[in-house]
Amino acid sequence: MTAVADDKPSHIFPSEYLQEFSAQVFMHFRVPEKDARQAADVLGRSDLRGIDSHGIARLHTYFDMLEMERINPRPKIKIVREKKSVATVDGDNGLGLVVGPKANAIAMDKAAKHGSGWVAVCNTNHFGMAGYYPLQALERDMIGWAMTNTTKLVAPLWGAERVLGTNPIAIAFPGDKEPPIVIDMATSAVAYGKIEIALRKKSAVPRGWIVDKHGASTTNPQDMIDGGAQLPLGSEYELGGHKGYALGAMVDILCAVLSGANWGPFAPPFALRQEIPERSVGKGIGHFFGAMEIGGFLDKNDFKKQIDEWRRVLKAAKPAAGTSGPLIPGDPERIAEARRSREGIPLLKAVVEDLLDISRRTGIPFAAQ
Amino acid sequence: MTAVADDKPSHIFPSEYLQEFSAQVFMHFRVPEKDARQAADVLGRSDLRGIDSHGIARLHTYFDMLEMERINPRPKIKIVREKKSVATVDGDNGLGLVVGPKANAIAMDKAAKHGSGWVAVCNTNHFGMAGYYPLQALERDMIGWAMTNTTKLVAPLWGAERVLGTNPIAIAFPGDKEPPIVIDMATSAVAYGKIEIALRKKSAVPRGWIVDKHGASTTNPQDMIDGGAQLPLGSEYELGGHKGYALGAMVDILCAVLSGANWGPFAPPFALRQEIPERSVGKGIGHFFGAMEIGGFLDKNDFKKQIDEWRRVLKAAKPAAGTSGPLIPGDPERIAEARRSREGIPLLKAVVEDLLDISRRTGIPFAAQ
Repeated sequence: MTAVADDKPSHIFPSEYLQEFSAQVFMHFRVPEKDARQAADVLGRSDLRGIDSHGIARLHTYFDMLEMERINPRPKIKIVREKKSVATVDGDNGLGLVVGPKANAIAMDKAAKHGSGWVAVCNTNHFGMAGYYPLQALERDMIGWAMTNTTKLVAPLWGAERVLGTNPIAIAFPGDKEPPIVIDMATSAVAYGKIEIALRKKSAVPRGWIVDKHGASTTNPQDMIDGGAQLPLGSEYELGGHKGYALGAMVDILCAVLSGANWGPFAPPFALRQEIPERSVGKGIGHFFGAMEIGGFLDKNDFKKQIDEWRRVLKAAKPAAGTSGPLIPGDPERIAEARRSREGIPLLKAVVEDLLDISRRTGIPFAAQ
Repeated sequence: MTAVADDKPSHIFPSEYLQEFSAQVFMHFRVPEKDARQAADVLGRSDLRGIDSHGIARLHTYFDMLEMERINPRPKIKIVREKKSVATVDGDNGLGLVVGPKANAIAMDKAAKHGSGWVAVCNTNHFGMAGYYPLQALERDMIGWAMTNTTKLVAPLWGAERVLGTNPIAIAFPGDKEPPIVIDMATSAVAYGKIEIALRKKSAVPRGWIVDKHGASTTNPQDMIDGGAQLPLGSEYELGGHKGYALGAMVDILCAVLSGANWGPFAPPFALRQEIPERSVGKGIGHFFGAMEIGGFLDKNDFKKQIDEWRRVLKAAKPAAGTSGPLIPGDPERIAEARRSREGIPLLKAVVEDLLDISRRTGIPFAAQ
């Protein structure tokens, strides 16, 4: 293996190879093959779309959780409460990568019958990239939504400690001849991964990303580690930080309070190194899925043609000086997916080492060259 | 009248007095009494909750639009397409203050029957404070959502012109013994009103609020007037401006593309002084309402008790230095409502003059002392 910095790609792998490895790892823990392939597909799609933080880079964490028996490999996922267009699903402490797609399918089935479907999920775990779920809805020509609460990282407005997760929101709208519009965003100002990179490089972060343990603005990422917190989208009050905080609260309540999961600071951690919350107020973490049948609102083809036109009009807006012009949500990921489908998935040296470690411990072959 | 600066309150009025005046003004234009009182209630609730920009301060604009016959005072509001849990409503170019509550009621009726209701609205006009609608849902013990698109003011990421409105999102969750959690937020970094105040005072605005006509960051509010634009929540890319832009896009598509209204830069203006868009791609502006029956997900009392607990836990988080501690969304408005219900509504001198002008032109008495 050639020497490369920790945050530079070391190897490139075909997507299929990585997905097969992930599936084998899940099966090693008695996850049924169909579920294992589903879970591997969620991770694989994330790597294809360039969301490296939510792809196979997380496999070691799922591995740890399965090995410690903190996740149920063969959950009995069931609807615990329901009306025509809504339901709550209990994920039986299964992999979020398995529970999520099943709950999302229930939302889509309801939408097909009743115009829309909304499913809150409790007793589940990390479900991967939020954008995966609305992409599934696009395959059924629907508008899809997904949200999840996550381990605490973000301070509330005028708070000096972590109480909410980075709680993402995803939604997608199908186009006709043009690509879909796919929104997938955390409700924090930035991804935690960006702060991790600054920590490794011992560099400062922009003002507005984090606060220290007193709730004061800081540019030193170590201050966040030492009892500080991330800031919500909008950062400080003057720039609308109360709005990002409100969005994070909305996601937390829809996913976790409405489903009977652990909300706010009580969301259980995903990684072993994270502290266990002092209290439990529900079961596992929570997700929230939505699906809308477009034909219940408007002729489906008319809608898709207008989405094409929306895209063209927005793209044609005057570019800001020094930029290539307005970006359409989901385009960077779509472009990454086209390229990585051809060229393969570049992985960091540290990720490859994680996969080799799993290979050694499970006996599942992994060839890193 | 005592001399007061334009942006200082000059008079205090009982809320009922202002609402009665608004209702009489709407009736003057042949708005049916029930609709007129509904419209006045939306404006009045906004004034009570301290959202001065969306209360009676806007009455002169509604007056202008009615006088110019740009708004239909007696609309035939109808459902044009529907499935069990979804519908599209055509507002027949009525007052948004009348169309909005009717469409929202359709969403709530659907939720009562089918677990949830989602209503897109076209051919409508400015609907007042977005938060009004989820407050209605709270009265039926439901979770309520409301969004609307608005006249263009905000630039897309890496764009140098206005293409989206300030497109607000509102959602509310009922508590049990504690007050509800009420989110009502524009998807722009700040309200346009804050830029107007800086313009009047000839003061600079914080970096991150606006760009100039080249799409470059500026702190001079005049640069926005001279062909610039507001920035979305998150401001520039580094702080997540692409996320606020994505949220604004989501609201635009749900409200206007899905309903068949005018989306993006084609949303017709609310005030007469604003330019008319070059193209029409639908009917009027658009709203989107949602209502969810909590009992379809979880026992309603359990949910409300957890919301109480959510509030207590978030409130008890460690305060940032120099602040009174974490804020719960909707609390400032709730506190304003309690105070203004007792003490009355303070109005700026300029607003009082607008009301006196309406009084002179309609013959409806208005006593400004």
